[in-house]
Amino acid sequence: MTRTAFFISDGTGITAESLGRSLLAQFANVEIRMLTKPYVDTVDKARTLVAIIEATAVKDGEQPIIIDTIVDQAIRDVIRQAPGFQVDIFSTFLKPLEQELDTHSSYSVGRTHAIGSDDVYMDRIHSVHFALDNDDGARTHQYNQADIILVGVSRCGKTPTSLYLALQFGIRAANYPLTEDDLDENGILKLPRVLAAHRHKLFGLTIDPRRLAAIRHERRPNSRYSSLDQCMQEVQQAEALYRRMQVPYIDTTRFSVEEISTRMIAETGLTRRFSPR
Amino acid sequence: MTRTAFFISDGTGITAESLGRSLLAQFANVEIRMLTKPYVDTVDKARTLVAIIEATAVKDGEQPIIIDTIVDQAIRDVIRQAPGFQVDIFSTFLKPLEQELDTHSSYSVGRTHAIGSDDVYMDRIHSVHFALDNDDGARTHQYNQADIILVGVSRCGKTPTSLYLALQFGIRAANYPLTEDDLDENGILKLPRVLAAHRHKLFGLTIDPRRLAAIRHERRPNSRYSSLDQCMQEVQQAEALYRRMQVPYIDTTRFSVEEISTRMIAETGLTRRFSPR
Repeated sequence: MTRTAFFISDGTGITAESLGRSLLAQFANVEIRMLTKPYVDTVDKARTLVAIIEATAVKDGEQPIIIDTIVDQAIRDVIRQAPGFQVDIFSTFLKPLEQELDTHSSYSVGRTHAIGSDDVYMDRIHSVHFALDNDDGARTHQYNQADIILVGVSRCGKTPTSLYLALQFGIRAANYPLTEDDLDENGILKLPRVLAAHRHKLFGLTIDPRRLAAIRHERRPNSRYSSLDQCMQEVQQAEALYRRMQVPYIDTTRFSVEEISTRMIAETGLTRRFSPR
Repeated sequence: MTRTAFFISDGTGITAESLGRSLLAQFANVEIRMLTKPYVDTVDKARTLVAIIEATAVKDGEQPIIIDTIVDQAIRDVIRQAPGFQVDIFSTFLKPLEQELDTHSSYSVGRTHAIGSDDVYMDRIHSVHFALDNDDGARTHQYNQADIILVGVSRCGKTPTSLYLALQFGIRAANYPLTEDDLDENGILKLPRVLAAHRHKLFGLTIDPRRLAAIRHERRPNSRYSSLDQCMQEVQQAEALYRRMQVPYIDTTRFSVEEISTRMIAETGLTRRFSPR
């Protein structure tokens, strides 16, 4: 039996969905179809949605779960008429918060993820372009402006992590690939010269060689580049370098981009320039 | 008088922070310092944090606001001892949800933003690399694989939006810059030939010319490229093209990357390949 959950918002729906998925993740044994309904910002849109929820209730044979972050009272009143198990986040917490803060809430429509001030916006966009300009060792002369420099073998997750740090937190992340060009005469991976001056900014990524081989195989099937032997050797060399140089590092095999990024920030004490509001 | 809010999680802290910022955004007249404390996943870490909260309460002269999504009971018990106005999301909603779903929650530690299955992971990473490979018209032969193709003048927000769509939703977004090369013999912007075959995938971005000039000025100060005249002309041409060709478009001046992306999805009915869990 499948249940349906609606995450409803007058804005992007990011908060309602994030909370909804967190709560429902605790019920792994129930199959739940999750639908996000953003920008429900008029009574008319709310009425249309209620009709959809009613139809879903009939089809499922069970009332849907409704998790919403709508602020406007008239729209809320419509949603409250939908047949469903209603998790009303704002009314549950706003009233007590009003008392605690000894003030009235503004009940302004969902602008949680709204654009911030010009400066904050520019910082965020600048960080994205910084990550792109300094991706994959393309440029190294801006490393003095970097907040963090990710190092690791090709396709271990440097680029997505750099971009996530930029988009979510406005952090300026460069990244540099460790390759065979950086092996010394004894076949040992050494710290590339361009990185030596920025050792305190380095953060290493590592990955399970089998996963790495699978990822590389998508790009260049059946090549030396994607062979398990090659991947094992590169990963081993990279990890040895991190330990020798005391570069903090994280294994990306087990973690999502969100987890890698937030763990990095927690470990290094990096300051965000931007927070999604 | 400044109050302090702590967003506490045993995982990334993304859910607690997202909800906390949403709730507190309703109290624009109160100055609130917001601190996110992720990975509080042991009793020891919780005790250290409680000491910090106690010190903050003394310094502020007011109890902090505590918003947490911790699942583990022993860790929760420690946090509950902190002096603060506690917004306990999970205990407020999990018990009623258990009843409604007629099952016990697993009370598993915060893996909301955990890595998904290999396939989902690969889809997400593939989408990020797709956005990079197809950024700024660099490549056009993969447009048949694109879910959406963003068009607009240089620096109107195409790249950050493409990357956000990829990272957050696994959507494959290419982007193509509209430039003077695409003016016809009468000086009218025409739809570039490489885009004509994919008209149904196009989504336009526009921007206030003054904001555009400011953004471009950061990149190439005092150039023709960053002059207000040039920006006004380009934006006018682009908007005329969107209307003539019935390309849906959005003004990025007023919206954050989150809003642009989620509005695009809502308008086009694009399917996500990935949802942050």
